Amino acid sequence: MPDDRVLSALRDLVRERDWAQFHSPANLAKSVVIEAGELLEHFQWDDDADRGEVADELADVLTYCYLLADALDLDRDGIVLDKLERTKSKYPADKARGVSTKYDRL
Amino acid sequence: MPDDRVLSALRDLVRERDWAQFHSPANLAKSVVIEAGELLEHFQWDDDADRGEVADELADVLTYCYLLADALDLDRDGIVLDKLERTKSKYPADKARGVSTKYDRL
Amino acid sequence: MPDDRVLSALRDLVRERDWAQFHSPANLAKSVVIEAGELLEHFQWDDDADRGEVADELADVLTYCYLLADALDLDRDGIVLDKLERTKSKYPADKARGVSTKYDRL
Amino acid sequence: MPDDRVLSALRDLVRERDWAQFHSPANLAKSVVIEAGELLEHFQWDDDADRGEVADELADVLTYCYLLADALDLDRDGIVLDKLERTKSKYPADKARGVSTKYDRL
Repeated sequence: MPDDRVLSALRDLVRERDWAQFHSPANLAKSVVIEAGELLEHFQWDDDADRGEVADELADVLTYCYLLADALDLDRDGIVLDKLERTKSKYPADKARGVSTKYDRL
Repeated sequence: MPDDRVLSALRDLVRERDWAQFHSPANLAKSVVIEAGELLEHFQWDDDADRGEVADELADVLTYCYLLADALDLDRDGIVLDKLERTKSKYPADKARGVSTKYDRL
Repeated sequence: MPDDRVLSALRDLVRERDWAQFHSPANLAKSVVIEAGELLEHFQWDDDADRGEVADELADVLTYCYLLADALDLDRDGIVLDKLERTKSKYPADKARGVSTKYDRL
Repeated sequence: MPDDRVLSALRDLVRERDWAQFHSPANLAKSVVIEAGELLEHFQWDDDADRGEVADELADVLTYCYLLADALDLDRDGIVLDKLERTKSKYPADKARGVSTKYDRL
């Protein structure tokens, strides 16, 4: 089970501001990629990025991911564990070891 | 504290496959936006998307977000809660209620 | 004036397949970022990408950009030249020389 | 042949500012998706976007696409026409008519 405090806090934020009306799954999916682009911006010209700024942008990506999971009644950690199990069987350790091309599709 | 099972499972997956060598913060940030684009693909032409397919892509986005947080030694739920506190003070409920423009920068 | 052959060919493709119904500016904007993510995929784990594959993905990004420009009746080369003039005055050569941070917002 | 004025103007801008050093294909590909995210931002909460603001962001996406094409010595309109020919044969008008799913991969 994911941390309920996070989900509760996010739901409170949204409810108190009446923002649920904007949070269709489609709008949240757009928001995830928009914030992901802002995250990448910190790595646009070189690989050194300010840890605090990355944390800030990563928080935005995660926030929209969590809201999208909630909107679709998905357990955000559950879907990660499910996918991870499929990845394990799809890319057996002995075959995928050290081969990035093996998992361009993690 | 976020769910340790998830982080442990992700770390095992990566260690067993010797994939850490590919997981620079910059590469993980690229991976987050790449997977976010695949997530959005399910909403490309209309707002109805298959819940299972969305869960699958959302899991990929979250996976790379979690790996990036881990690579930078960030508590993935902690940064969300921190940002949420700042959002609350930035957009007071009484002022931001029902106004999307107020939070184009959640 | 941009190459009319390209625009004409794109319009023919769309008209012959009755695809204009899917080409709202919003859907085309989503398509641009989706294809941009696929383009970046070729640089996900290292900086060496297959030139032909990059050309293929870049063509998709450009195609949706051109369709979006056309949907909004924008001259695709005209807007680039306009923006370029503003960038020039915003980042005078003598001040911006060799400074990437100066133009994180090209 | 694409409009040479655009390419010449872009090359001048970059040369005068000594920015070529930042323009590896990988960095330009990141820049394309970053700007594509900013473009989508104008459609984040609804489908109505300010035409001028969209033109501005679209110009940024195109600029980085043109620079990437130039960096790889690709004719930006040529690759679009090539891809278009392949799309035509892949999705015959009679089969693809009005079917968006037919070209989720344009």
